[in-house]
Amino acid sequence: MDMASLLELCENIRHRILEVVSKNGGHLSSTLGAVELIVGMHRVFDCRENPFIYDVSHQAYAHKLITNRWKEFETLRQFGGMSGFIKPSESDFDYFIAGHSSTSISLGVGVAKAFALQKKNAIPVALIGDGSMSAGLVYEALNELGDRKYPMIIILNDNEMSIAKPIGAISKYLSHLIAGPMYQSVKDRIKKLLEKMPDSATYIAKRFEESFKLITPGILFEEMGINYIGPINGHHLDEVIHALNLAKDMRCPVIIHAQTTKGKGYEIAEGRYEKWHGVGPFDLDTGSSKKATNAQSPTDIYSQTLLELANEDEKIVGATAAMPGGTGLGALIDKYPNRFWDVAIAEQHAVTSMAALAKEGFKPFVSIYSTFLQRAYDQIVHDVGIMSLPVRFAIDRAGIVGEDGETHQGLLDISFLRPIPNMVLFAPRDNASLKSAILFASNHSSSPCAFRYPRGKFIINDGIFENKDFIIGKSELLLEGGKILLIGYGNGVGRAYEVYLSLKTSGIEAGLLDLRFLKPLDKDLKKILNSYSYAFVFSDSYKIGGVGSALLEYIADNDIQIKLHSFEVKDSYISHGNTGMVEKSIGLDSSSAVDYIIKNT
Amino acid sequence: MDMASLLELCENIRHRILEVVSKNGGHLSSTLGAVELIVGMHRVFDCRENPFIYDVSHQAYAHKLITNRWKEFETLRQFGGMSGFIKPSESDFDYFIAGHSSTSISLGVGVAKAFALQKKNAIPVALIGDGSMSAGLVYEALNELGDRKYPMIIILNDNEMSIAKPIGAISKYLSHLIAGPMYQSVKDRIKKLLEKMPDSATYIAKRFEESFKLITPGILFEEMGINYIGPINGHHLDEVIHALNLAKDMRCPVIIHAQTTKGKGYEIAEGRYEKWHGVGPFDLDTGSSKKATNAQSPTDIYSQTLLELANEDEKIVGATAAMPGGTGLGALIDKYPNRFWDVAIAEQHAVTSMAALAKEGFKPFVSIYSTFLQRAYDQIVHDVGIMSLPVRFAIDRAGIVGEDGETHQGLLDISFLRPIPNMVLFAPRDNASLKSAILFASNHSSSPCAFRYPRGKFIINDGIFENKDFIIGKSELLLEGGKILLIGYGNGVGRAYEVYLSLKTSGIEAGLLDLRFLKPLDKDLKKILNSYSYAFVFSDSYKIGGVGSALLEYIADNDIQIKLHSFEVKDSYISHGNTGMVEKSIGLDSSSAVDYIIKNT
Repeated sequence: MDMASLLELCENIRHRILEVVSKNGGHLSSTLGAVELIVGMHRVFDCRENPFIYDVSHQAYAHKLITNRWKEFETLRQFGGMSGFIKPSESDFDYFIAGHSSTSISLGVGVAKAFALQKKNAIPVALIGDGSMSAGLVYEALNELGDRKYPMIIILNDNEMSIAKPIGAISKYLSHLIAGPMYQSVKDRIKKLLEKMPDSATYIAKRFEESFKLITPGILFEEMGINYIGPINGHHLDEVIHALNLAKDMRCPVIIHAQTTKGKGYEIAEGRYEKWHGVGPFDLDTGSSKKATNAQSPTDIYSQTLLELANEDEKIVGATAAMPGGTGLGALIDKYPNRFWDVAIAEQHAVTSMAALAKEGFKPFVSIYSTFLQRAYDQIVHDVGIMSLPVRFAIDRAGIVGEDGETHQGLLDISFLRPIPNMVLFAPRDNASLKSAILFASNHSSSPCAFRYPRGKFIINDGIFENKDFIIGKSELLLEGGKILLIGYGNGVGRAYEVYLSLKTSGIEAGLLDLRFLKPLDKDLKKILNSYSYAFVFSDSYKIGGVGSALLEYIADNDIQIKLHSFEVKDSYISHGNTGMVEKSIGLDSSSAVDYIIKNT
Repeated sequence: MDMASLLELCENIRHRILEVVSKNGGHLSSTLGAVELIVGMHRVFDCRENPFIYDVSHQAYAHKLITNRWKEFETLRQFGGMSGFIKPSESDFDYFIAGHSSTSISLGVGVAKAFALQKKNAIPVALIGDGSMSAGLVYEALNELGDRKYPMIIILNDNEMSIAKPIGAISKYLSHLIAGPMYQSVKDRIKKLLEKMPDSATYIAKRFEESFKLITPGILFEEMGINYIGPINGHHLDEVIHALNLAKDMRCPVIIHAQTTKGKGYEIAEGRYEKWHGVGPFDLDTGSSKKATNAQSPTDIYSQTLLELANEDEKIVGATAAMPGGTGLGALIDKYPNRFWDVAIAEQHAVTSMAALAKEGFKPFVSIYSTFLQRAYDQIVHDVGIMSLPVRFAIDRAGIVGEDGETHQGLLDISFLRPIPNMVLFAPRDNASLKSAILFASNHSSSPCAFRYPRGKFIINDGIFENKDFIIGKSELLLEGGKILLIGYGNGVGRAYEVYLSLKTSGIEAGLLDLRFLKPLDKDLKKILNSYSYAFVFSDSYKIGGVGSALLEYIADNDIQIKLHSFEVKDSYISHGNTGMVEKSIGLDSSSAVDYIIKNT
C-alpha cells in the first residue's frame, strides 16, 4: 500500500468505527484518536512476529478492523459478538487480554525476556495512553526495563486526558513537552538558582539557559534509562511510520511520544469530553444519545446523597481513581476541590492516602468500581484494615456489568473483602436503601466498611418495601411464610423478590430475608433460619467465598438444620453482552432459580 | 542537647540496638544505618505535631528508643513484647503501622491533605529506603504530590540496597548521583548529540557540557515537581539537621537524598550483606549465629528442587520481588541470571511480566511470600487468571510467621485465591511432598496454580507417610477409622496428625485425610465424607473463605450429612512472637483442638 491508500484506509476505519459505535455503543474517542498509530504499527511491524500489546485495549478497534474483522465488527460488545477489548480467543492477531489499565509495559518486558531467551530478533510494541501512565505497575516495569535495556517500543499515545481530565505530575510533564521542549521549566529553575546565587553568577546562568534549549525533551524517561523520541504528531501517518522505523533499529527500550486528539475525525467528540470516552448508541449527525434514561442510577443516588451529607459535614472527604463521572464523585470534586480528589488511575494511592485522612479524623469515601478495587487489595488489608481505620468503600458496578465483559465484572469483591478482619460489609437493595447505606457508612467510625451497588439500576424500585435505617449486624425479614427462605443481599434482594412472586403464582409460599449485613452477620439469624427447611441465596457475586459461603459458615458454627443452596455466580469468567442476556445465560435469572427451587424442595 | 550529646545519644542507641538484637534477633543493618537520620528528625521536628511516617518501619528502632521505650526494648519481637515495627497501639509517638514497603509517601500525601483542610502548619515527614522506591505505590503518590505540591518532607535513606542488592533504573539512578552529580550521564548524552550534529556545533556542545555540571542532581525528581536536596551524608548529624531545617522552611514537597551505610557502626554487618538485614540471635563479637539449624527449611527444598528441575528444563523461568534469599530464588538467579529475575519490590510487575512469559510458552515460577502476594491481586486475576496462563505461584511463609507479626502473617492467600476462576490450589504437608508439589506445578500447564508452605519448617518430618505424586484433584486418605475425620491441608496435615495421635492416646479412633488439592476438590470426597459423622479441618489460614469454607460449599452442593468444624484462624489480626506461643494463644495448637473434639463428638 502506498501512502495515499493508507490514508484512505484510516478514513475508512474511522467511518466504520463511527457507524458501529453509534449503533452499538462502545468506546469512541480514544479509539478514533489512535487510528494512525495503529495503522502505522501494522505498516512497520508484522504483529504475529512482534506482539502488539494494547494497554486497556478499548482504543484498539482499528486493530480489529485491520485484522480480518471488518464484517463481524458490527457485533461489537453484543452478547455472543465481538469483545470491546483485545481478546486472544477472538483472533490470533490479538496478543493479550486487557481491560484494566497500565499492564502493557510490564507485559512487554515479559515478552522481551522471552525473546531474549529464544534469541528472537522480534520486538514487543506497546501502545499506552497518557492516562494509563499514572498507575504504579507502569513505573515498576519501567524501572526494570530502564535497567536491563531490553529492546522494546512503547508508543505513548498522549491525548492529554485519560478518561477524565489529566491528573498528576506525569500528565503535566507530558503536556509541558508540547508547550516547548523543557523550556519553561528550565526558565523557572534558573530563576530559582539565580535567587540562591551571588550576583557574579548571573552570566553563568545566562549561558545555562541557552544551553538548556538544546536538550531533548523527555529527560524524565532518559534519566530512567529509556530512550525518548518525540513529541511527534500522532495523526501524521508519515511521522508515525518514520518514528517507528527509527525505534525499530535502535535495539533498546524506546518511548515514542505521540500527540493525538481524542475523538479525532468526529468533530462533535474531538477534545476533552469525558462523555465521549464510552458511549451508548447515539445519533451520528447530532451526537445526541438515543437512549434517554430519566431514571436515577445508583451512581446518581450516591453522588447526590454524598453531596448532601458533605454539605453538612465537613469531615467527609473522598477519592476516586480517574472515574469522577463513572463513580459520581465528579460533582463533589467540582464543588469541593480541596476535599474530594481524583488521584488518576492509582487505586493503591487512593486507598492508602485516604487511610491517612481517616487516621486524622476525617471520613473518607473511596469510590471505586468493584473490578478496580482489587488493584488496591494490599492497601485495604495493610494500610486500612490492621489499624481498623474507618475508610468507607463505595463499590460501584458490583455484579454483572454488561457490555464490558470479563475484565470488568464486579463479582469478586465480597470474596476478597470478607476475610479481612475488622471489615464491615453491607449492601442496599434499592435506591432508597442506598441512601440509608451511605448515611450508615458516614456514621460508622470504628472500622472500615464497604457497600456495593449495581451498574445502571437496581432490580426493584423504591417503595415495594418500606425503607429502614441500617443498624450494624441487623437483617430485615421482609416476608414470612412456608418452608422456603429466600435470602437476598444487595441487588440480590430484588432477584429474590422476583422469585418470591413467581413461587407465589405457582402456589408456593416462601419467606424473604434481606441480609443487609454480610459482615457482621445478624446474631439473630439462627432463630429465623431455624423456622425454615430450605434457604436459597441471591447475590450478584461469586459463589466461592461469597454470601452463601458466609451463611454456610454461620450454619455450621451454630448447628442449624437447614438446607442451603446459593444462586451466586459459578466459578468462571463471564463474557460480555446485555446484562439480562448474560445473566440468563449463566442461570442467574429468576426463572432458572424458580425451576431449581420447585425441583429441589 | 548540644551536638556532642546528640552524637553520644547516637552511640548509645547503636549500642542498645546491638545488645537487644543480638539477643532477640530482629532487623539489624537498616536500623543501624538510620540512627542519625532519626535523631535528626527528632531534633528538628516534634513528631506529635509533624507525623513521622516510617516506610516498612523495621529501620525505626532508634525512634522507639528515643520515645520512652529504652527499657521495654529488651522485649523486642517477643510474644507479648514490643513489636519490631512502628505500631500506634504500642505508643502515641507511633503514627502509622507499616510492615509492607512503599506506603509512606502515599500516607504522607493523605496527611498533607488533612493538614491543608485543617489549616495546620505542620509537615508530614516520611523516611523511606531506596529499596522501597521501586514499588508502584511510591510513584502513584509522587505523581499526585508533584502536581498538588503539598508541603511534605521525604527523607530518602539511600544505602544502595533494599534487602538484597539494588535493582532497577531508579536504584541505578540514585547511585549515579553519588558517583558525581549527573556528570557521567551528561557526558554520554553529549557524545550522542555530537554524533548527530554538524561539526560546527562542537563548540556549542562544549559549552553545554560545562553548563551541565552546574545542574543540581535529582533532576528526575525535579521533573516530577518534587524539590531535591542532596546527596547528603546521612551519618553526619549536622548535615542531616541542616537539610531538614532547609526543607522545613520550603513549604513544598522536598526529597532529601541521604546516603547511609547499612549496618553502620557494627563493622561485621556494614555493607552489602543481605544476611544482616534480618537476623536471629547472634554473638556480638564474632557475628556468628547462635541458633545452628541444620534442618532444611521448605525454602531450601524449594530452592534446590526448582534448581534441579531448571537444570533439566530450560523452559523454567522465575521471578521474585526483592526476596532472592527469603524465597530461595537467589541460587537460581546466580546460576541463570537470564532466566530468573529479582524485579525489586514490585510484586505487580513480577506477576504481570511472568504472565507474558507463560504466554510465550515458558514455565514461570513466581516466588512471593503469602503476605506480599496480595500486592499483586489484580495482576493475578486480570493478567494471569482470565487467560488461564500457567503461572506457578510458590507461596512461602504461609501461615503464622512468628516474630514479624500482624503485617506479615500468611493467612489470607487461600481466601483471596480460591474465588479466582481457573486457579488450581494445592499444598504439600512435608519436605518430601513439597518436592512433588513443585514437580506437579512444573508439569501443570493448562492454568495458573499456587502452592503454599510454611516459614521455617513443616510440623511433620518426611517418612511418617509415604510420599506420592500429586495428581490433580486427588486427596489422600492417610488413616482410616472411627466416626471422626481429621482433614488437613498443607502444614495442617501435620497438626491433624498430632491431634490424631492424642486422640488415639485417649482411645478415640479417627481417620486422617490429606486434602492435597483445595481447588479443584477431590470428586470422590463424597464417598469418604459419607463414612464419617464429624469432620475437623486443619489449615494455617483464615477460617473465613478458607479450607473449611470450601468443604462446607462442597458438602452443601453434594448433600452430604456430616458435621464440620474448622480449626482455621479466627477473624482477627494475629500479633507477633514465637510461632508456637502465638498458635497456642489463638487455639491453633493440637491440645486445644483435642479438647474441643472430645467435648463435641
